[in-house]
Amino acid sequence: MSKEIGITVTKNDDFSEWYTQVVLKAELADYAPVKGLIVLRPDGYSIWESIRSALDEKFRKEGIRNGFLPVLIPESLLGKEKKHFAGFNPEAFWVTHSGNNEIGDRLALRPTSETLAYSMYSKWIKSWRDLPLKINFWNTALRAEIKATKPFLRNSEFLWQEGHTVHTTPKEAEEEVMKILDIYKKTVEEELAIPVITGKKSEKEKFVGAVYTTTMESLMPDGKALQMGTSHFLGQNFAKPFDVKFSDKDNVENYAWQTSWGVSWRLIGAMIMVHGDNKGLVLPPKVSPIQVVIVPIYYSEADAKKVIEKANEIEKILLDKKIRVHVDRRSELTPGFKFHDWELKGIPLRIEIGPKDIAKQKVVIATRHNQEKTDLAIDKIDGEINVILEKIQNEMFDAAKKMLQERSRSVDDYEKFKEELEKGGFLYAPWCGDENCEEKIKEETGAEIRVIPFEEKNQNTKCVYCGKSSSITSIFARGY
Amino acid sequence: MSKEIGITVTKNDDFSEWYTQVVLKAELADYAPVKGLIVLRPDGYSIWESIRSALDEKFRKEGIRNGFLPVLIPESLLGKEKKHFAGFNPEAFWVTHSGNNEIGDRLALRPTSETLAYSMYSKWIKSWRDLPLKINFWNTALRAEIKATKPFLRNSEFLWQEGHTVHTTPKEAEEEVMKILDIYKKTVEEELAIPVITGKKSEKEKFVGAVYTTTMESLMPDGKALQMGTSHFLGQNFAKPFDVKFSDKDNVENYAWQTSWGVSWRLIGAMIMVHGDNKGLVLPPKVSPIQVVIVPIYYSEADAKKVIEKANEIEKILLDKKIRVHVDRRSELTPGFKFHDWELKGIPLRIEIGPKDIAKQKVVIATRHNQEKTDLAIDKIDGEINVILEKIQNEMFDAAKKMLQERSRSVDDYEKFKEELEKGGFLYAPWCGDENCEEKIKEETGAEIRVIPFEEKNQNTKCVYCGKSSSITSIFARGY
Repeated sequence: MSKEIGITVTKNDDFSEWYTQVVLKAELADYAPVKGLIVLRPDGYSIWESIRSALDEKFRKEGIRNGFLPVLIPESLLGKEKKHFAGFNPEAFWVTHSGNNEIGDRLALRPTSETLAYSMYSKWIKSWRDLPLKINFWNTALRAEIKATKPFLRNSEFLWQEGHTVHTTPKEAEEEVMKILDIYKKTVEEELAIPVITGKKSEKEKFVGAVYTTTMESLMPDGKALQMGTSHFLGQNFAKPFDVKFSDKDNVENYAWQTSWGVSWRLIGAMIMVHGDNKGLVLPPKVSPIQVVIVPIYYSEADAKKVIEKANEIEKILLDKKIRVHVDRRSELTPGFKFHDWELKGIPLRIEIGPKDIAKQKVVIATRHNQEKTDLAIDKIDGEINVILEKIQNEMFDAAKKMLQERSRSVDDYEKFKEELEKGGFLYAPWCGDENCEEKIKEETGAEIRVIPFEEKNQNTKCVYCGKSSSITSIFARGY
Repeated sequence: MSKEIGITVTKNDDFSEWYTQVVLKAELADYAPVKGLIVLRPDGYSIWESIRSALDEKFRKEGIRNGFLPVLIPESLLGKEKKHFAGFNPEAFWVTHSGNNEIGDRLALRPTSETLAYSMYSKWIKSWRDLPLKINFWNTALRAEIKATKPFLRNSEFLWQEGHTVHTTPKEAEEEVMKILDIYKKTVEEELAIPVITGKKSEKEKFVGAVYTTTMESLMPDGKALQMGTSHFLGQNFAKPFDVKFSDKDNVENYAWQTSWGVSWRLIGAMIMVHGDNKGLVLPPKVSPIQVVIVPIYYSEADAKKVIEKANEIEKILLDKKIRVHVDRRSELTPGFKFHDWELKGIPLRIEIGPKDIAKQKVVIATRHNQEKTDLAIDKIDGEINVILEKIQNEMFDAAKKMLQERSRSVDDYEKFKEELEKGGFLYAPWCGDENCEEKIKEETGAEIRVIPFEEKNQNTKCVYCGKSSSITSIFARGY
C-alpha cells in the first residue's frame, strides 16, 4: 500500500492529524463545500445507523416513539425562554429570504428543538391521560462553529437524536432523566466499547434552560475529556413560557415537568479516537458495517476457482448466522494490498484462505484490534466466528477501560493538580461548590469540571482551590 | 364520540376539508409555527419508518447504501448547472447570517442535492473500479411554497429520500433508472396498496437538468392525479459541470453517466386520500403502526379481570407472531368510544372480547376497510390473524385498482376531452409530441400530461389537440 493511501503519521506523534487522516482515508466522512460541514460516506453512515437501531430498540421498550420536527424555528419562538435563547443565539444560522422575498420573523435553523417541540406539546396535552408523553427525534442540529472544526467532533451541522418527555410529577421526570442516561451508558459501552463516567454537570456547565444536566464523559487517548451525551431535567422552566399544562384527576390545571436529552455522531468520533491505531480505524464488531472480510489468496487460475468457491461457501455459512460478511473478489489486487485496505478500514475480523489452507481444511483468522493471526479449522467456522466477534468486542472494551482507569487519579493539592493536569486524564478533586473557584481553575489551567460523578470517591475534604470545606468530588480535565 | 373529535364532513362533500381533518384528528401530523411546515406525530412518523425500511431492504439488494449530506449548499455551487439553478432558485430558502455575521456566499437550504452530491462524487471517483457508485440519502428537502400548502402534499420542508448513482455507460445508468422505478412501484403497490401507472414525463414536465424523467402517477378519489415518485436519467448533464470523471480500463478519462431519484412523504398523503373514509383513516396493515387493536369489553369488576386476562393472552399470541398489537386498557372509557377512536385512527383489525365471547370461546373481529364484523374461534387466532391481515391488504389494493380503472378512459376528440376532464380521472389521449399543443391544452383546460405510459394503448392516431399524426398516447389529468 502506498504511503499516500495509508496513514502517514502515528497516533502518538500527531494525534490531531492522525485522527483527520483516519476519518478521510477510511472513507467515513469527507469535507463538504461549506467550512465546518461534513458529508458521511456509506461506511460512516452505517455506523450511525447501528447506533440508531441500538438506541431505537431501547427507546421503544421505554415507551418512547419517534417523530419529526421541521428545521426552521421562528426567532420569536426561540426567544420565549430568555436564557436558552441567549445561549444559542450567537451560533444560530438565520434564514432571511425565501426566493427573493424577505421573511419578517427571521427563521433560525434548529440549534435544538425544545422551543418548537414544546409549542406543539402545549397543543397536544390536555389532561393527565395524555401523559407521560415521550417523543424522540432523529434529525440534525445546526450551530455555526467559529472555532477550529473537526469531523464528528465539532461541526456546524451534526446528526443527533433529541428526546423530549413530559410528566405529571417531578419525580417521574427525574426518573426518566436517569433511565435515559442509563440507556446511553449501556449503548456506548456495549456497542462502541467505550467506558463512560456518569454524573451531573456543574451549574456553570449545565444546559441553558435546564434545572440540572446529567452527563456521560469519556477520556480520549490524548488525555482530553469528551462529553458523550447529556440528559436534562428541565423542571417547569419551559412548561411555563410554553404553556405546557395538564388537568389532573381532580380537574386542576398544572404545569408539566419535562426532560430533554441527546447524543450525536460525536460518539463516532470518540470510537475512532479510543480504538484506532497507526494502521487506521479499528471498529467494534457490533457497529462495523462489515464484521468479517474474506480474502481469497491465489496465484494461478486453477487455484483461483477452488479458493473462490471455498470463500463463497464460508460466506454462505456466515450469512446464515446473520454475520455481516464480505468476500473481497477484486481482481488485479494483491492479497497484501487487500489486507492493508481492510486494516485501514478497521474491519474486526479477516479470514484468509489459500490453496494450502484448503488442503489442511483450515483458514487463517486475523483479528484487527490486537493484530493477531491464528488458524481455525473450516468446520469450526460455523460455531466459532460469533464467539470470536464477541471476544473482540469485550477485549476492546476492557482495553479502553484499562486506559481510563490508568489515567484517572485523585489530587487534593492545587500545585499537584496543575502538575498532573499536564499529563492529561481525569483528575478527581474536592471542590467547595463555589462557581468562583471553578472559574479560577479554568482560567489558570484550562481544566473544567467535566462531571460530578454519582459515585463520589471521597468526602469531607478541602476544596482543591480555596481550601474551604468540600463534600463534592468533581472530575476535572481539559476537554474537547 | 363527540362531533369535535370525529370527522365532521364527508369525503364526497368536502374532500379537501375531510383530508385535513383526517390528518389532524388521526394525529398523524400537525401544523408547525411557520406557515407551510408540519410536524409528524408518532403515528405519522411510524408510517414513514415503514416505507423507509421497505425501501432500504430493496435498495440494499440493489447494492445501494445510505449516506448523509448537510442541508446547506453554497449559492455558487447550486448555480453551476444553469437550468437546474433557474428551476430551484425562486423557491430556495437563503441563509445570510450565522449569529451576527453576514455570510459572503449565501447558503441555500437543500432543495435537492444533485449539486452537492456530485461535487463530492467528483472527488471520490477516480477509475472504473469506483463505479457504479450508488448512494441514497434519507433527509428532507426545502422549497418555499407560496401556493396553498397541505400536509404531506405541499410543504416547504418534506421528508424524502434522494438517490444518486454514477455509471460507466449510459446503458447501465438507464437500466438503473428503470430498476429504481420498479422498486418504487412495488413498494407503493405492495406496502401502501396504491396502484400506479409508470412511464415518462414529457420534456416540459421533466426534472430540470435531466435528459428524461420517468415517473409513477396515481389517481386520487377527487379525480386529480398525484405524482408518486420520479427516477431521472441525467446523462452527462451534471457530470460535465461537476467534473464527475473516471478513467476506464484503457486509462482513458471519460465523463460518467448519472441517475437521481426520489420519493417523499407525499406517499402518506396519497395513502390517506385513496383509502380513508367518512370515519377517518384506513391504514394498510403493512404500514400501520398498530395492526391489531384488542378492546376488552366488560361492565363489572369480576368480568374485567377475566376479560383483560384473556386479552393479554391473545396479545401474547400475536406478539409471538410479530404482529404489531395493542390492548386498549384505558379505564373510564366506553367500548363504543374506543371503537370510534381506533376507527378514526384507521387500525386495520379490531378484536372485541367480552364475557359472552369467552363463554363461547370466540372473539369478534372487525375489519376497518370494509366495516365488517365476524366471529373467530379463539383457538384459530394463532393461525388466522396473519391471513386476515394479508386479505385486508389485498382487498384494499384491489379496491383502489378498481377505482383507477373505472376512472381511466381513452378520448381522441378535443370536445369530448374537455367534457370528460370535468369528471376527473385519467384521460388517455393521442398527442403529436409538440410542446405547443401540450401548453395549449394546459392553458385551456388545466390538464397536464401526467405520464406517457410505457405500455401505449393505441398508435398511429391523430393528436387530440392539433389533429396531426400522433404515435404517442399520453395520460392527461388535472393534478396536485
